[in-house]
Amino acid sequence: MAKAPVLTPRGADFPRWYQDLITKAELADNGPVRGTMVIRPYGYGLWERMQAEMDVRIKATGAQNAYFPLLIPQSYLTREADHVEGFAPELAVVTHGGGKELEEPAVVRPTSETIVNEYFSKWVQSYRDLPLLINQWANVVRWELRPRLFLRTSEFLWQEGHTAHATYEEAREFAARIHRDVYGDFLTNVLAVDFVAGRKTPRERFAGAINTLTLESMMGDGKALQMVTSHELGQNFARAFDTRYLSKDGTQEHVWQTSWGSTTRMIGALVMTHGDDDGLRVPPRLAHVQVVVLAVKDDDAVLAKVRELAERLRAAGLRVRVDDRTDTPFGRRAVDWELKGVPARVEVGPRDLAQGTATLVRRAPGSKEPVALDALPALLPGYLEDDQALLLRQSRARRESRTVDCASFEEAVEAASAGGWARVPWSVLGEEGEVRLGERALTVRCLLAEDGSVPGDGDAPGNVAIVARAY
Amino acid sequence: MAKAPVLTPRGADFPRWYQDLITKAELADNGPVRGTMVIRPYGYGLWERMQAEMDVRIKATGAQNAYFPLLIPQSYLTREADHVEGFAPELAVVTHGGGKELEEPAVVRPTSETIVNEYFSKWVQSYRDLPLLINQWANVVRWELRPRLFLRTSEFLWQEGHTAHATYEEAREFAARIHRDVYGDFLTNVLAVDFVAGRKTPRERFAGAINTLTLESMMGDGKALQMVTSHELGQNFARAFDTRYLSKDGTQEHVWQTSWGSTTRMIGALVMTHGDDDGLRVPPRLAHVQVVVLAVKDDDAVLAKVRELAERLRAAGLRVRVDDRTDTPFGRRAVDWELKGVPARVEVGPRDLAQGTATLVRRAPGSKEPVALDALPALLPGYLEDDQALLLRQSRARRESRTVDCASFEEAVEAASAGGWARVPWSVLGEEGEVRLGERALTVRCLLAEDGSVPGDGDAPGNVAIVARAY
Repeated sequence: MAKAPVLTPRGADFPRWYQDLITKAELADNGPVRGTMVIRPYGYGLWERMQAEMDVRIKATGAQNAYFPLLIPQSYLTREADHVEGFAPELAVVTHGGGKELEEPAVVRPTSETIVNEYFSKWVQSYRDLPLLINQWANVVRWELRPRLFLRTSEFLWQEGHTAHATYEEAREFAARIHRDVYGDFLTNVLAVDFVAGRKTPRERFAGAINTLTLESMMGDGKALQMVTSHELGQNFARAFDTRYLSKDGTQEHVWQTSWGSTTRMIGALVMTHGDDDGLRVPPRLAHVQVVVLAVKDDDAVLAKVRELAERLRAAGLRVRVDDRTDTPFGRRAVDWELKGVPARVEVGPRDLAQGTATLVRRAPGSKEPVALDALPALLPGYLEDDQALLLRQSRARRESRTVDCASFEEAVEAASAGGWARVPWSVLGEEGEVRLGERALTVRCLLAEDGSVPGDGDAPGNVAIVARAY
Repeated sequence: MAKAPVLTPRGADFPRWYQDLITKAELADNGPVRGTMVIRPYGYGLWERMQAEMDVRIKATGAQNAYFPLLIPQSYLTREADHVEGFAPELAVVTHGGGKELEEPAVVRPTSETIVNEYFSKWVQSYRDLPLLINQWANVVRWELRPRLFLRTSEFLWQEGHTAHATYEEAREFAARIHRDVYGDFLTNVLAVDFVAGRKTPRERFAGAINTLTLESMMGDGKALQMVTSHELGQNFARAFDTRYLSKDGTQEHVWQTSWGSTTRMIGALVMTHGDDDGLRVPPRLAHVQVVVLAVKDDDAVLAKVRELAERLRAAGLRVRVDDRTDTPFGRRAVDWELKGVPARVEVGPRDLAQGTATLVRRAPGSKEPVALDALPALLPGYLEDDQALLLRQSRARRESRTVDCASFEEAVEAASAGGWARVPWSVLGEEGEVRLGERALTVRCLLAEDGSVPGDGDAPGNVAIVARAY
């Protein structure tokens, strides 16, 4: 079946393709207040699956969920100097409540370090109360002047972790553990999005942190996207809010802290990593609809078989939807599921039925073949695992083929400006080179150690900088 | 073991007992902005279980989750006259964003009917798009002058459902279905909170609704709490936002709508329904910690047995926590779990171990007995089901014993003022009587039909009013 060109091709205009896909796959709409968004059911279903997979990994670290207020007294923000400098330009401010002007304006949380510390300082008394490991699923508001759906929105959904520890080393190890075992594992094994795991330069750190770890992924156009970050906060907020504990030695000590977050931006990353000219391709392990079983025609035998097959696939552990909207042309429905990137489509028509087969269309490889109906429940889970692996391989291959080893500032600028990433010794760039990259709309995405691992020391000899244009 | 009186007794000062329990069981703290709250991990764990149980019931109706923006242009609120009148006094208003005064102030959503309809009017084109069944898990802000944790907070968490249907009858049936199969079922089978299911009088309806269904429960002090509501919105918002569809006959028709919500207030209801002078009693089906296995002493054999038993109880399908904080006195830990209302406590000490037994303390009946360690995994699930049923029976018995049939306005005032509920013919009260009740701080909680069912018509002869003081 020939397909109508439903999307602007990626090669013609990548940003337009992205916007087209999000609209036509019914992932999200722009909200009425500038930069806000409406996440539609299909898009929200992706977020629910991300939440479920992240939540289990977060809880496995011992962290517990809690909820802190949306509204933060404006004065809290100012207590940590770097923090307020970083966030002041993005704040939304509530000045009136209950029909009256407030005595002190409240900001809508842009992040919760300040209000969390206000309570940590009450809850933490002794070393027995440590570590204190808290996570929150919430909305935050950061005013955006150049919004783009999912990537930069004035309101977004996220999880933010906040922890307090007795020692620097413990906090450092916990930030690294989240980076590796929660975020890294989730990207690799669920999102199928390849990344480099590195350390931010001081210039790119979170406002108030002493160290920021990041996962950076290459999007379909070669640009970088910061996927998630995990911060060591040192004792900055502990000092600002006097969060102290009684040590085993009987002394009062400030706690050492971490914070870490992942957002609905990951839905944008999913689109820009796995999308193609026909739409999204959702990795099977993530998909809230893994298989759609389509009735090609309004025919009793077909409809009965479609429902029976759906039940058998569910019994095989798959997340299945039935599409029996036979008053909508079959071609339009097929295009719709392709746009939405459902991993497998099983099409059942009267002719198939007579032969005991169905047509199986796998979204990731783009294959289409007849399969025996009875064999599907046993075969499909394995196929989906293959397709999950394929998506990760493709994502990895893109980064590897479009990353160039560079020896100089000029080479790095050239490689990164040509739509790829540059790997260049940090000693060649330095902070001065980093500023000059900024003038060319390029950034150091992160630093890697010589062996490719996350550097414990940002200035260690042999550190390599990843330079790219970024979202 | 004699217990220290950790809480103000309920009989001495019910509001103080409530506040004490919430603080000491570590459910929540007051937030810094007036009326806001911090939900602590143990309290949030209850909310997560409520969300999980509700979400599965909501999805079973065919509704899908989505997310609408927090910030709503102020002008949206004014489009539906009753709606703005109801909510204007409670709004929090954002006047500044990104360092500038906004051209149009945005309100922090107090509820989302207006912004939802703005999008429904785009998404709904034809009868094929109906019914449109959406649910959202979110935070909302309604400025509170007399806040009380969980019961009335300036920010609370909730789910809000919004649906659009082709006909009045369909919308009406859907609102009733949510009321019965989602909310009623959840309260009965998970929260173990008894209720009457009725219809609000016009005076007590949601601002913008043509009919509001409610579940009203009796708290430990005899007052009523509105647990959840489900509204028929008629075509009020559809007209205000021009939400129309092309019918099968080719005509343009306004949709018929419902909305329905349940909030973190249910945590307050849980406390005031099942709490006793020793703390909370969490119904086993709700509990995120159903069983805590306590190591009485720091002893290797004890600790090994505690962990092994915990694993066996988990294998039996229970949600289990180990308490091996042996550097905290045992008595203090036991009191803490009692305060938190964990349904079952299994205490393992060296003496028990020698006898192959443990001490089982069941929170709901308050029983304490030795049990054979090996028998526990088989016995405990059944015990917990018994305790779940006990809590519901106690809740029902309270309402039944403290509800008085009354024949006149005066009798109703007397019964409801004495700390119970009055059942009085609606024809005896009428709207004028309802106003006079208000002067005595009493309200008509809802109307019931003569046979106790939800009245289809608020003015049907035989309708009975439930009159009570309410939270």
